Amino acid sequence: MTDERFSPPRNFGWLPPEHSDYERSRVVILPVPYDSTASGWVGSREGPAAIIDASGNMELYDIGISSEPYLVGIHTLPDVAAHGGGPEAMVERIEGIAGELIDDGKFVVTLGGEHTVAVGAARAYASRVPGLSVLAFDANADMRDVYLDSPYSHACTLRRISEIAPLVQVGLRSAEREEHEYIREQGFRFYGPREFRSLGPEGVAQQLSEAVYITFDLDAFDSSVVSALGTPEPGGLHWDEVSDLLEAVARRWRIVGFDVTELAPSLGPRANAQLAAKLVYRLIGLAVRE
Amino acid sequence: MTDERFSPPRNFGWLPPEHSDYERSRVVILPVPYDSTASGWVGSREGPAAIIDASGNMELYDIGISSEPYLVGIHTLPDVAAHGGGPEAMVERIEGIAGELIDDGKFVVTLGGEHTVAVGAARAYASRVPGLSVLAFDANADMRDVYLDSPYSHACTLRRISEIAPLVQVGLRSAEREEHEYIREQGFRFYGPREFRSLGPEGVAQQLSEAVYITFDLDAFDSSVVSALGTPEPGGLHWDEVSDLLEAVARRWRIVGFDVTELAPSLGPRANAQLAAKLVYRLIGLAVRE
Amino acid sequence: MTDERFSPPRNFGWLPPEHSDYERSRVVILPVPYDSTASGWVGSREGPAAIIDASGNMELYDIGISSEPYLVGIHTLPDVAAHGGGPEAMVERIEGIAGELIDDGKFVVTLGGEHTVAVGAARAYASRVPGLSVLAFDANADMRDVYLDSPYSHACTLRRISEIAPLVQVGLRSAEREEHEYIREQGFRFYGPREFRSLGPEGVAQQLSEAVYITFDLDAFDSSVVSALGTPEPGGLHWDEVSDLLEAVARRWRIVGFDVTELAPSLGPRANAQLAAKLVYRLIGLAVRE
Amino acid sequence: MTDERFSPPRNFGWLPPEHSDYERSRVVILPVPYDSTASGWVGSREGPAAIIDASGNMELYDIGISSEPYLVGIHTLPDVAAHGGGPEAMVERIEGIAGELIDDGKFVVTLGGEHTVAVGAARAYASRVPGLSVLAFDANADMRDVYLDSPYSHACTLRRISEIAPLVQVGLRSAEREEHEYIREQGFRFYGPREFRSLGPEGVAQQLSEAVYITFDLDAFDSSVVSALGTPEPGGLHWDEVSDLLEAVARRWRIVGFDVTELAPSLGPRANAQLAAKLVYRLIGLAVRE
Amino acid sequence: MTDERFSPPRNFGWLPPEHSDYERSRVVILPVPYDSTASGWVGSREGPAAIIDASGNMELYDIGISSEPYLVGIHTLPDVAAHGGGPEAMVERIEGIAGELIDDGKFVVTLGGEHTVAVGAARAYASRVPGLSVLAFDANADMRDVYLDSPYSHACTLRRISEIAPLVQVGLRSAEREEHEYIREQGFRFYGPREFRSLGPEGVAQQLSEAVYITFDLDAFDSSVVSALGTPEPGGLHWDEVSDLLEAVARRWRIVGFDVTELAPSLGPRANAQLAAKLVYRLIGLAVRE
Amino acid sequence: MTDERFSPPRNFGWLPPEHSDYERSRVVILPVPYDSTASGWVGSREGPAAIIDASGNMELYDIGISSEPYLVGIHTLPDVAAHGGGPEAMVERIEGIAGELIDDGKFVVTLGGEHTVAVGAARAYASRVPGLSVLAFDANADMRDVYLDSPYSHACTLRRISEIAPLVQVGLRSAEREEHEYIREQGFRFYGPREFRSLGPEGVAQQLSEAVYITFDLDAFDSSVVSALGTPEPGGLHWDEVSDLLEAVARRWRIVGFDVTELAPSLGPRANAQLAAKLVYRLIGLAVRE
Repeated sequence: MTDERFSPPRNFGWLPPEHSDYERSRVVILPVPYDSTASGWVGSREGPAAIIDASGNMELYDIGISSEPYLVGIHTLPDVAAHGGGPEAMVERIEGIAGELIDDGKFVVTLGGEHTVAVGAARAYASRVPGLSVLAFDANADMRDVYLDSPYSHACTLRRISEIAPLVQVGLRSAEREEHEYIREQGFRFYGPREFRSLGPEGVAQQLSEAVYITFDLDAFDSSVVSALGTPEPGGLHWDEVSDLLEAVARRWRIVGFDVTELAPSLGPRANAQLAAKLVYRLIGLAVRE
Repeated sequence: MTDERFSPPRNFGWLPPEHSDYERSRVVILPVPYDSTASGWVGSREGPAAIIDASGNMELYDIGISSEPYLVGIHTLPDVAAHGGGPEAMVERIEGIAGELIDDGKFVVTLGGEHTVAVGAARAYASRVPGLSVLAFDANADMRDVYLDSPYSHACTLRRISEIAPLVQVGLRSAEREEHEYIREQGFRFYGPREFRSLGPEGVAQQLSEAVYITFDLDAFDSSVVSALGTPEPGGLHWDEVSDLLEAVARRWRIVGFDVTELAPSLGPRANAQLAAKLVYRLIGLAVRE
Repeated sequence: MTDERFSPPRNFGWLPPEHSDYERSRVVILPVPYDSTASGWVGSREGPAAIIDASGNMELYDIGISSEPYLVGIHTLPDVAAHGGGPEAMVERIEGIAGELIDDGKFVVTLGGEHTVAVGAARAYASRVPGLSVLAFDANADMRDVYLDSPYSHACTLRRISEIAPLVQVGLRSAEREEHEYIREQGFRFYGPREFRSLGPEGVAQQLSEAVYITFDLDAFDSSVVSALGTPEPGGLHWDEVSDLLEAVARRWRIVGFDVTELAPSLGPRANAQLAAKLVYRLIGLAVRE
Repeated sequence: MTDERFSPPRNFGWLPPEHSDYERSRVVILPVPYDSTASGWVGSREGPAAIIDASGNMELYDIGISSEPYLVGIHTLPDVAAHGGGPEAMVERIEGIAGELIDDGKFVVTLGGEHTVAVGAARAYASRVPGLSVLAFDANADMRDVYLDSPYSHACTLRRISEIAPLVQVGLRSAEREEHEYIREQGFRFYGPREFRSLGPEGVAQQLSEAVYITFDLDAFDSSVVSALGTPEPGGLHWDEVSDLLEAVARRWRIVGFDVTELAPSLGPRANAQLAAKLVYRLIGLAVRE
Repeated sequence: MTDERFSPPRNFGWLPPEHSDYERSRVVILPVPYDSTASGWVGSREGPAAIIDASGNMELYDIGISSEPYLVGIHTLPDVAAHGGGPEAMVERIEGIAGELIDDGKFVVTLGGEHTVAVGAARAYASRVPGLSVLAFDANADMRDVYLDSPYSHACTLRRISEIAPLVQVGLRSAEREEHEYIREQGFRFYGPREFRSLGPEGVAQQLSEAVYITFDLDAFDSSVVSALGTPEPGGLHWDEVSDLLEAVARRWRIVGFDVTELAPSLGPRANAQLAAKLVYRLIGLAVRE
Repeated sequence: MTDERFSPPRNFGWLPPEHSDYERSRVVILPVPYDSTASGWVGSREGPAAIIDASGNMELYDIGISSEPYLVGIHTLPDVAAHGGGPEAMVERIEGIAGELIDDGKFVVTLGGEHTVAVGAARAYASRVPGLSVLAFDANADMRDVYLDSPYSHACTLRRISEIAPLVQVGLRSAEREEHEYIREQGFRFYGPREFRSLGPEGVAQQLSEAVYITFDLDAFDSSVVSALGTPEPGGLHWDEVSDLLEAVARRWRIVGFDVTELAPSLGPRANAQLAAKLVYRLIGLAVRE
């Protein structure tokens, strides 16, 4: 029944089957509409659907990098179901699914939902890719060991990830005193936006390794750039800065997978979903060049 | 890749493949996100996606009619693409697609978009089902012959349908003087909400024929019941009244197809999409009993 | 420059000059975007513009009363400016303007803004029309003598009006204990929605006099019918009930002027402005029959 | 520092200390902004704050029952903190707090948050009040034994409550087939809105016992009356119907405690929070007459 | 009836008759609420009214250029009516009206609606002003020859304009591959935001000619600056950059007319309409100095 | 009843009693939800509650200045009641309350509401602190002597303040011609954003005196940074610029008190309240170091 009279299906990029069948696709989008540990304003569970909807409103040629990323094939899976057993069980479910996809030769793009979902995806990569390093975009330290009785709260995301791979964080401008002290004691490489500007994209990129996983909490952006967030913060990164850093990383290393999380569409303008879709597409274009 | 760890796909009813594959489905949902002749507030192009999203938030057992309509199979097609050649070409496109589906043995549910899309679907049925009558729910007469230079404007919908099949309309409470006079001169059976209440569901139902097509402009409802509309009107129908009439029709005749149109989600609360989804599901349950 | 290629101007009804010039118009719309004594949620200052915008989305034939009210001419004045000297000065300004319009032979329709604006308009009529009675639609008693140090607060509106003309109120379901006692002691005819239903439209209408001024606080409606209000209240009136009462009054007496107030458009769906426009138009049709 | 120049504090009713101190208050409001098992649209965690904000916009005299409920004293506690250990731990926390309050002689009003929070409050009453019966307002059966792996999901609320006290439910119009069969097999007294209308308020009230706990999921209301809900349903109850039933229960029996849940303020107009505040206040007035 | 007690009328600038009468005005605002070829999110038909509403909230002295642009007179026409015959007929209607205004000695400011409306206005100028060049602000190439079967889609706007006058575009960051190749092959001067920054305002301005028409699609701005758009894009221009370029052009050449298009007010904060009003006013001030 | 099972109360910072009791607190938050002279879009009366709500979503450690400002104690008073006697009476009420607090040794943080409220607070400080200078952040001159008949309109705020203390203003980009001339004639130090950038934070800071009061109208920020305002303006200040200036002032002088005004939460994204909360907290941290 698919023919010229119909729009493409509502997958990421609104791609026809020849560019979105599972078999023919190098990239797999894994939507995870999960936000049950959120402690501020809620709604990131609506993020994946909003990003996918917005992605149809985007040119498939990315003029910024002169590339047509969809040509490698982008398959969109159905939503991962929320696990009633709490965030740890959810993280395990995501790790399981992402692992199967990696083993099947796919490049996995996880769309949150809350940042917690990144732990599952990052673990799947860390256990399969030797020498993996992680580049985290985030306004918050996310370095609590336990929060509201759970080690898998969104506020513990980077702590959990730091336990499995070397971590470089960019965008930091909100933390508990204890977290801040822990970061300094441990010598973690967390950079506020101004520190990032001093260091420059190359200065950050060179701290990573051959294989890089990127975890992107959208609150790394300045709250004027993305406001549809549970924890928007002023004083953050701007689009060109982020784009430059991603290009610097892609030039130097191999990006093996990534996630984009925390978009809560009802808390800001629709333009934020559009930006998130473009970010995902840019990252695919940088990571999976033909 | 589909398994227990995933939510069902975002089709109507969020149904797994065994209840939503084209081959195994008796019912086909045809989303038509088209609103280019709208003259009031816009946004009904977002109606089909909102109804489909909301349909996942609905029990698949319809307690009101003690039925599980999804068991007959409900397949959701991709969106029909807008035709740049104007509303007439769009109506023809819809008629073509709906006709092919009917010829393939499917029960077609058209989701608007503006009411204009009903003309295409009704024509496909009228040319294939002898003795078809049409039951229209609408606040407006929609009986203009031409509007803003086009005979396929939303304001002409029922005029066009009246030319192909006998018509009974319920919910009327807005019209031009010329339309009102035309209706009276022609002896058309258009009933305002209070006239409908006097007549009763059976009184309306008995005016239809063996085979009934239902075209449903959601502004037939009172604007307290559905406000997410380009032309909301007070003094309209309530849920139980509509439900009673639909049941009366289904008891007496065969409903061969229907459309639900004009939901403009951003103009009212999300609850309106939920109501529209339930209305579609109820109608499927009444029309396509196993 | 006005010709067929242009839409009509954004006056009430979006009427062309031949039906909206001041000279040729029997009716004058007086928009008063004033809400500075509001004590709940604000925004009724945006009410007049929203009603006027919505009025272009309305058929100019009112099928409910088989009438084309615009044929008597409806002129829309510019907004009355807020007076910095407080509500008393504002009430005087409105009284002055309305009085001049009445003296010029016009039928004045005042659009609030907060209910306070009704005091000015009612006074202009009371001092010119012997034997005037007032029919008030309101959820609240509005019978405080002074509120937040001012006798011209929105909460004192009906108290001020009761001092200049006999008053019948419909829709009451919110009051202070002192107000309620005062109403009972004074024998004021205030009817809750259920009392109104017992009495019936004729029962209320017969309590009025030959010449009736109608002041309409939209919160008289049930909050499901109109929610875009500073003080929405459940358990109120429905569209047909209001319409029946207005028709009963018009059949029996002469409606000399009216106001519609308290629409705060940003607090509810756009459908509420549509309803308010239709109410204004219905009232014009009932009051100023050719 | 409290004096005439300040507004009252933002507790329920915006009451001054003499009517809201814990010691002097007969009634205690227990806000529980918890929605982590929600499976539809989210946001009921913002319900308690919205109800408390709206309560300041309400007359303290309830004209509908000629009463000033605040005179018995209404104390508002701080929000109950979400428990990271999942819904069972949260239910236990609520049960513990409510129990302490009951033991201290307080009348407990629990404000959700999702309906799950009712289980804790109902248990605290059931274990202390012999012969307790429960009156539930709900659109959904909520009779699943387990949902998404948890027996404390919002979809299991009434199942859990049915295990500790005899239950009468009003408003039913959405259920799984299995739930519906279970209800019929067990002979549970669940009434859809039309069944309720046939039976009448007295007919329902007489099925309760000397001591009644009321659990109120706001989706029992028709979705035109309250739309700010995760699972709004058309065909529901109206304000006067609910009010009549509550009055019938209060005339005949003693209401020992209640909860009001599921308001998700961002999904509908602010008027819905106003209605919820008035419902809470009405229930206090009916239950705790001086 | 106009006097001190009234606010000015709702024309652009909310100007009294002495500064807004057609005869005495050098500038004419032509509102074109047309968006029927929009393919993303809709609502730019509400743009002109939103800009005009917001313009009353603006100081009439433009401190940025030390000028009071309204002193030359600014007349606001009624809305141009949508033409049911499709975008080509609409473009012709706009060209006709704009042409008559230019011939009458007016400076024409066209307010969209979708960018398509610019074609009509630009044609009217191009056929009357020898040596005209066009400066386009846009995020998109808009260089498709035909889109959705129409050569007058919003996606073809700059292609059509490039056929009638030399074009310089600023803000480019979204295009099809074919468009991008076409631009490069043809040597069109399209500058992305970073290219613009390298070149500087003077570098762009000097590429224009004696007489400049400016067409402004608001998506040229970064999506943090204006988000109320059908196709918002990150990585765009900021206010001061745009302002500097406009000043550079005005210093060097004569701006003969301009349009501002694509504001879809319901998709972003009201501040966006305020910015658009200020942009229009700034452009008038730069173009029509006394 | 306060214990671990409860969230902290909804005061500024959501602080437990040991950090928010009046007696133990060095800082007092004075919420003034007053907006009755607002002449543009309204809603700043909802600002204080929105800021206080958002403040619970903020880390109590301010990483930007490596400080935990709450340790000095922050007490939140109830809302100041609106005075029905107009803005002058309101300003006097605020001056009275602020004065009592200062005399009691408190550091007063006034939250508007409209900018007018700053006059009361600034006067309380000016009459008690010899040699006080005022640093104003504002997009508008606010230097009208009288506006809409009142010298206490929001448009006169800085004129009134300039009469009691030397004033330095930053952010200016909107003014009447008369205001602009007055500023230049009087030699007032008002700096537009670009002038501020030329001068630098130190250049501005050195113009102040030993004791500085800061009055902050949030429209000083660029409208992309804060859009939830009655009079948003493009071309304004960014977060880091403001933060740098505040730090420069704090390093050099003593900040004795401040206000933050004009947030109208419903006009922009929730992120704006978050930014305002963080600004207040930053200012407390800079002004009241332990």
